[in-house]
Amino acid sequence: MKTLITGGTVVNATGRGAADVLLDGETIAALIAPGSTALGVDLAAHVDRVIDATGKYVIPGGIDAHTHMEMPFGGTFAADTFETGTRAAAWGGTTTIVDFVVQYAGENPLDQYAAWHAKAAGNCAIDYGFHQILSDVQDSSLHAMDELVAEGVTSFKLFMAYKGVFLSDDGQIVKAMQRAASNGSMIMMHAENGSVIDLLVQQSLARGETDPIYHGLTRPWQAEEEATHRAIMLANLTGAPLYVVHVSAKQAAEQIARARDTGQNVFGETCPQYLYLSLEEQLGAPGFEGAKWVCSTPLRSRAEHHQDHMWRALRTNDLQVVSTDHCPFCMTQKQLGLGDFSKIPNGIGSVEHRLDLLYQGVVTGEISLERWVEICSTTPARMFGLYGRKGVLAPGADADVVIYDPNGHTSIGLGKTHHMNMDYSPWEGFEIDGHVDTVLSRGELLIGDGEYHGRAGHGRYVKRELSQYLI
Amino acid sequence: MKTLITGGTVVNATGRGAADVLLDGETIAALIAPGSTALGVDLAAHVDRVIDATGKYVIPGGIDAHTHMEMPFGGTFAADTFETGTRAAAWGGTTTIVDFVVQYAGENPLDQYAAWHAKAAGNCAIDYGFHQILSDVQDSSLHAMDELVAEGVTSFKLFMAYKGVFLSDDGQIVKAMQRAASNGSMIMMHAENGSVIDLLVQQSLARGETDPIYHGLTRPWQAEEEATHRAIMLANLTGAPLYVVHVSAKQAAEQIARARDTGQNVFGETCPQYLYLSLEEQLGAPGFEGAKWVCSTPLRSRAEHHQDHMWRALRTNDLQVVSTDHCPFCMTQKQLGLGDFSKIPNGIGSVEHRLDLLYQGVVTGEISLERWVEICSTTPARMFGLYGRKGVLAPGADADVVIYDPNGHTSIGLGKTHHMNMDYSPWEGFEIDGHVDTVLSRGELLIGDGEYHGRAGHGRYVKRELSQYLI
Amino acid sequence: MKTLITGGTVVNATGRGAADVLLDGETIAALIAPGSTALGVDLAAHVDRVIDATGKYVIPGGIDAHTHMEMPFGGTFAADTFETGTRAAAWGGTTTIVDFVVQYAGENPLDQYAAWHAKAAGNCAIDYGFHQILSDVQDSSLHAMDELVAEGVTSFKLFMAYKGVFLSDDGQIVKAMQRAASNGSMIMMHAENGSVIDLLVQQSLARGETDPIYHGLTRPWQAEEEATHRAIMLANLTGAPLYVVHVSAKQAAEQIARARDTGQNVFGETCPQYLYLSLEEQLGAPGFEGAKWVCSTPLRSRAEHHQDHMWRALRTNDLQVVSTDHCPFCMTQKQLGLGDFSKIPNGIGSVEHRLDLLYQGVVTGEISLERWVEICSTTPARMFGLYGRKGVLAPGADADVVIYDPNGHTSIGLGKTHHMNMDYSPWEGFEIDGHVDTVLSRGELLIGDGEYHGRAGHGRYVKRELSQYLI
Amino acid sequence: MKTLITGGTVVNATGRGAADVLLDGETIAALIAPGSTALGVDLAAHVDRVIDATGKYVIPGGIDAHTHMEMPFGGTFAADTFETGTRAAAWGGTTTIVDFVVQYAGENPLDQYAAWHAKAAGNCAIDYGFHQILSDVQDSSLHAMDELVAEGVTSFKLFMAYKGVFLSDDGQIVKAMQRAASNGSMIMMHAENGSVIDLLVQQSLARGETDPIYHGLTRPWQAEEEATHRAIMLANLTGAPLYVVHVSAKQAAEQIARARDTGQNVFGETCPQYLYLSLEEQLGAPGFEGAKWVCSTPLRSRAEHHQDHMWRALRTNDLQVVSTDHCPFCMTQKQLGLGDFSKIPNGIGSVEHRLDLLYQGVVTGEISLERWVEICSTTPARMFGLYGRKGVLAPGADADVVIYDPNGHTSIGLGKTHHMNMDYSPWEGFEIDGHVDTVLSRGELLIGDGEYHGRAGHGRYVKRELSQYLI
Ligand SMILES: [Zn+2]
Ligand SMILES: [Zn+2]
Ligand SMILES: [Zn+2]
Ligand SMILES: [Zn+2]
Ligand SMILES: [Zn+2]
Ligand SMILES: [Zn+2]
Ligand SMILES: [Zn+2]
Ligand SMILES: [Zn+2]
Repeated sequence: MKTLITGGTVVNATGRGAADVLLDGETIAALIAPGSTALGVDLAAHVDRVIDATGKYVIPGGIDAHTHMEMPFGGTFAADTFETGTRAAAWGGTTTIVDFVVQYAGENPLDQYAAWHAKAAGNCAIDYGFHQILSDVQDSSLHAMDELVAEGVTSFKLFMAYKGVFLSDDGQIVKAMQRAASNGSMIMMHAENGSVIDLLVQQSLARGETDPIYHGLTRPWQAEEEATHRAIMLANLTGAPLYVVHVSAKQAAEQIARARDTGQNVFGETCPQYLYLSLEEQLGAPGFEGAKWVCSTPLRSRAEHHQDHMWRALRTNDLQVVSTDHCPFCMTQKQLGLGDFSKIPNGIGSVEHRLDLLYQGVVTGEISLERWVEICSTTPARMFGLYGRKGVLAPGADADVVIYDPNGHTSIGLGKTHHMNMDYSPWEGFEIDGHVDTVLSRGELLIGDGEYHGRAGHGRYVKRELSQYLI
Repeated sequence: MKTLITGGTVVNATGRGAADVLLDGETIAALIAPGSTALGVDLAAHVDRVIDATGKYVIPGGIDAHTHMEMPFGGTFAADTFETGTRAAAWGGTTTIVDFVVQYAGENPLDQYAAWHAKAAGNCAIDYGFHQILSDVQDSSLHAMDELVAEGVTSFKLFMAYKGVFLSDDGQIVKAMQRAASNGSMIMMHAENGSVIDLLVQQSLARGETDPIYHGLTRPWQAEEEATHRAIMLANLTGAPLYVVHVSAKQAAEQIARARDTGQNVFGETCPQYLYLSLEEQLGAPGFEGAKWVCSTPLRSRAEHHQDHMWRALRTNDLQVVSTDHCPFCMTQKQLGLGDFSKIPNGIGSVEHRLDLLYQGVVTGEISLERWVEICSTTPARMFGLYGRKGVLAPGADADVVIYDPNGHTSIGLGKTHHMNMDYSPWEGFEIDGHVDTVLSRGELLIGDGEYHGRAGHGRYVKRELSQYLI
Repeated sequence: MKTLITGGTVVNATGRGAADVLLDGETIAALIAPGSTALGVDLAAHVDRVIDATGKYVIPGGIDAHTHMEMPFGGTFAADTFETGTRAAAWGGTTTIVDFVVQYAGENPLDQYAAWHAKAAGNCAIDYGFHQILSDVQDSSLHAMDELVAEGVTSFKLFMAYKGVFLSDDGQIVKAMQRAASNGSMIMMHAENGSVIDLLVQQSLARGETDPIYHGLTRPWQAEEEATHRAIMLANLTGAPLYVVHVSAKQAAEQIARARDTGQNVFGETCPQYLYLSLEEQLGAPGFEGAKWVCSTPLRSRAEHHQDHMWRALRTNDLQVVSTDHCPFCMTQKQLGLGDFSKIPNGIGSVEHRLDLLYQGVVTGEISLERWVEICSTTPARMFGLYGRKGVLAPGADADVVIYDPNGHTSIGLGKTHHMNMDYSPWEGFEIDGHVDTVLSRGELLIGDGEYHGRAGHGRYVKRELSQYLI
Repeated sequence: MKTLITGGTVVNATGRGAADVLLDGETIAALIAPGSTALGVDLAAHVDRVIDATGKYVIPGGIDAHTHMEMPFGGTFAADTFETGTRAAAWGGTTTIVDFVVQYAGENPLDQYAAWHAKAAGNCAIDYGFHQILSDVQDSSLHAMDELVAEGVTSFKLFMAYKGVFLSDDGQIVKAMQRAASNGSMIMMHAENGSVIDLLVQQSLARGETDPIYHGLTRPWQAEEEATHRAIMLANLTGAPLYVVHVSAKQAAEQIARARDTGQNVFGETCPQYLYLSLEEQLGAPGFEGAKWVCSTPLRSRAEHHQDHMWRALRTNDLQVVSTDHCPFCMTQKQLGLGDFSKIPNGIGSVEHRLDLLYQGVVTGEISLERWVEICSTTPARMFGLYGRKGVLAPGADADVVIYDPNGHTSIGLGKTHHMNMDYSPWEGFEIDGHVDTVLSRGELLIGDGEYHGRAGHGRYVKRELSQYLI
């Protein structure tokens, strides 16, 4: 099966230009100057399918490097399965996710790794890789790290919060970092001071503060800034590369920027919710409404200008990646926390909307078109060892291609654009001045003509190499 | 004329991969997956010329964004003409230079622009663009700025030193920056405090200090740091983009990094001499020997670790570009300053060796292979409005291609690799673990099989667009 | 004449305590524990005068280190003569001023020094010292510096603004700093980039912007930050101590703090107007009203929080001194600038109210009581070589004593507390929860029982030593 | 008993001057201008004792705010009892110590407070106060904090290291800080990341590294910097004042300076060992010799310039206090760690030499004479609520007076000046260009004519007020 995409503007991380893209089976066979006669063949006549991308952007498929499909948490499961979640992702132009294998304290990381494969295999609409969560790092975890790297799991997420569930203490973190420094893998960090947060939550509840907004107020920026700095310093001590997930506080972003200024391999990710939503407006919505936006790190105060700072840090590459931390719960699940904000399952669903939401940042002038591609696809690929196959439109790369229409429009919300398995949308009412027109994954059409053409099982596991982004 | 480059590893700023490159006339027609049958033709049989790049890197031609061919200065002229200088550049894998039109105080910028065209036309081996130097900014200079932008001169260099020759005072700088902010052009700055330097030079000479090393000692880092900060603040006031040329002091680089951290459009360039050479070793060589390395900003003290800091700033993208500031003088010219260091013509010749010298940084682990391509070609192109045509291997781009052999070797020095019009080499004795194998400019072979195949007049003037690098 | 001050709380820079103070003639003879019988005499019976300070603070007389009495500027003279200005100062608890001898370009510094002595001699109510302003530094200025140090003028003010009037270029500044580094004197700096300001003023007027607020808008914070940084770097180069006068922009204060963090002898002064007044409220008052508050550096925007930052910098000793920059002009004089803000004489009168205004900062919790004494008296004394005689209540020190009543009240304004020779008060309507009760200068009563007991001619010239504040 | 000290130069934190000091019983009765006749009496004839201080400095008695007499640690006790330790202190001009009550995990703070009183009562040569160590903060600890504040224990030391012994986790620290913020007391912090250190120690021992130098190498600067930052951020969250003890790493000092720049009440102490001694020279001495200097935080690398940075931070008041952390162990005790550095009792004895060692910094130009008094006496008094009685020579203050002879000399070492109960001196061979001539405590002569005149039991417990140093 050969496909020729003609007439579009190919956009990559450093620039844009007119080019036709020839797909052959699962890979990109060639990029060709439009109208070139140098090949000596009429390609359009020759291929099986021609897609006209005139007036549109042709970009590498989006990579969402932070999702939690079917994640077991707090006695329930994230509402999207690998099937529903990856289908929604496809609708939004994301053709690869990197999901988190969860190893809770006491479990064997390799067992869980196998379990996650079992959950994903045969169910995914798009390709997927895995990070491994390590809770309560033990010596056995260190051995598992080496084995997992050989399996293509080259990044390990640790937690500085959620005591008794995920948390590793600083000595455990150092041990994992030492191993990462030796086997070349990346340490990902949930950087919040759990000990402090647990106390504040307990004190808040004791004062009778139960509404969702207290989720945010008991996770103050100091808890994030502190943990971020601590993670950076432990990485400095061990020489491990560090990637801080879901940065939301401007002070945390400043710590990352400062570490980068000294040449340390420290990186940061933010999420659409930290760019657009706020403590006051969403988390502080009347009654229990704010539960929709309970996630950790929490939404931050707009009065303190965290959102502006996140955009700026994206522009200056002090934050390198935008992922979603997709971990949706339905309101029926959120209601576990009625009367006690600390029992609300933590998570927001955005896997479908990341490219659109960030494209709106291009429209409003927050980021350039090239930077959009870079933070949504190219850098995630480089950061997590996918580049070459993913994250770029180049010969030999997987034929993961999105055609994005800057003249289209997308209305987000239930009954509008909404394919995630959620009974509400955290992005209800958001209007995007652009549209995901066509999505191909390894040459197969997933989205076209406003319809879904994909199938569960198309998506394959991707063994990842070591990070290609280290300085 | 069609050329197919096969078997190589194409390297760009974000990654690398195997790809064949098809050149058709002056442009790149296609990038093709090696061995692909998707095109339905045997390209190798079909083209006029096949170049085997097996085991080699295929990269976009180097762009040296800072050269001074035939520059009139201090009563003499830089020793390389556009003919000799661009030929030497070609030998070293540089296929585009951006040279500086010089307008001295009292001259008409547009007249000088025309004069520079006259000097370059018909003489260049490779393509060339122009920046415009504005001395002693007048209202007429502001009008000229708009006209020059229309001519493809989208960057203007100002000087904070060389009173009576180049220097603009701060009010004049603000005026030029205001105009740049309105017409979208870039301000380039020679950031040294000339008033302070002039005093120190006069005091030094009065003390009988005449050796070349006093050139460095009378241009202390404080003079560079101060001017860099001042330029940044004036840019902040006016909203103009700023590009600081030839950064050599770590403290100046820190000012640039700090400005970037706040989201300002401030960029910095360094040069090979500030990465490898030092005040103590070269400028302080016995007798008059140090004159070989008299340039401004001066070589910095290795004991103060400026060189290490420059490499680090390149890694973290706090400096974005490496140019040469190619401005060679023969020792016969340098001798103007025998007995008075202040009369030594300022300048070093490196246009031939930039790619090699920076590749050695890849070998020694200072930068990645991708970063090498980025700082030598891709970012210069983006910074100065050349991207699309230059700085990238992509369909439709100019067929400026370098094949670099990581298994080759290059010995620099007179009687070895040396094509610049200089009677000495500032890089004598440098050994490079790599080699410029083949160089094509707009599809024409300039260097191949160890020989020069180019010709004066092949190179054309390139109208530049506005910077494509702003944040 | 012996005076015993009993029952008060003596406050100095490090703490407070009950103590009686015995004055003998012009000096402090002893500090005595109240009720002590150790001396074996009944002092109260023995002395000529007993002043009951029960419930009040007894502090060293205020030192205003920055005044401009009778200063010739812009075709007129500051409205307070040494007679009226020092009398007003006495009313407000200031017992020493350090005024500026003005040497304009082309004048002989020593001639001007003599002229200022002539103006002050026989006219002052309180003691006075001199700083010397050096405009357009020449070699003759450098020789004068040494002679003036011998005369007790150990600080020299330079200007980075007011071209053709006061401005020295950077080379001239370095020359003066080199001399200061060698003779131990202090460089004071008016740190605003005059070249930029002159341009902005000219552009603003050309746009028809003539109201007083444009005085502020054409002297943006960038112009102050830039010049402050430049002065710091030149001081770094030369090793001279630096004291930046009238700091008003938070960014300038940050530059000073940063220099201090590296151990450089850099200090900063702010003034009451930068703590309390703003661009929006005062300088932006309707019509020509804002002219009352035209001074340089200008009042800053409250929306940008400069005022808060000044208070904070005072608390952390990143700014060390509060002076007034007393330079009053009557509205009749201010009207020189009707229709052209650039012609409004620059200056505000506050010499009378400094202690009261800062005491209000104690009341509102901005600073501690001890810090009030430190920034108003002790540090000015140390900074400018007066300590021992001035700035402290200690045996042997000049009997310059203020009794301050924390239960008193002061209403500032015309017809209320106003003794400066101005036809308006820039502090009209300010209410202070404290009162200057009694003022003695070298043992003579100047203020007591709400009346002025001083006389022109009591005040004497004070030869100052080198700064006692260097680190 | 009346004593008159005549002819000396009284030095306090802001300056110096000639003054006679009259002591009446336990307090200072008066400071008198030498030769003054204003009192109308011949005091010298009138008093019981005249001490001639001609040519000498008269300063407030030293305050060592950090000592551990008889401290139980690691199965042994610090070698100095309250009797021997305070006597040695007296020899060195220290007239007040603030010692640490130790509450280990599981103990009742108030019981331990009583126990410490029992140990000290009747044994001390000089006055003493107490800080309270809180280990493993419990709710009962919080209640104890309020009671202890009423007892004059207004500062509480927490540990971020020594798990299972002293360590409080971050939630516990926050709880104690919240209480401090509400009752006005100060939190003192041992800021080292114990979790990391415990791991590094275990790994080091597992590699067979047993020499004393590994004590330093397993407590890297990152562990101190990290904990310092964390403590600052927790203090920021709670509003508690924070005092970081025994700062030795320059990076930790930078964190403190940065916090001060933002106006936070964060302070730091260093010790003579961190100013003079190093990892390479002392801790790395051959064989087991280095055990003499095993203390925590450890001696730092001189190659990394920590020592220079500590001096600079003292000059700029980024560190405010020099204490000793006096916790001496004899070599017989140190030998507990033969073959296992982690078993060497942690501590160095310096209580006798602090004033001398710091005075040598005056001689070498590191600090001014006034700064010497400030960091050794005045600021410790203010920081810990002693000012007024201690830390200043003023009427009504305790007659704690040291006469220091700048023309004297002190040779430190066994058989020379050494009164601490140690079988070696960590300061062996140090030569001081000055000498503690005379020491009085509340009017009683402790040291005079080279002999000890004090007695166990003279020293009294001092109830401290809240800190007088907050900004
Ligand atoms: Zn997380
Ligand atoms: Zn997550
Ligand atoms: Zn230049
Ligand atoms: Zn140049
Ligand atoms: Zn001024
Ligand atoms: Zn002034
Ligand atoms: Zn400790
Ligand atoms: Zn201790």
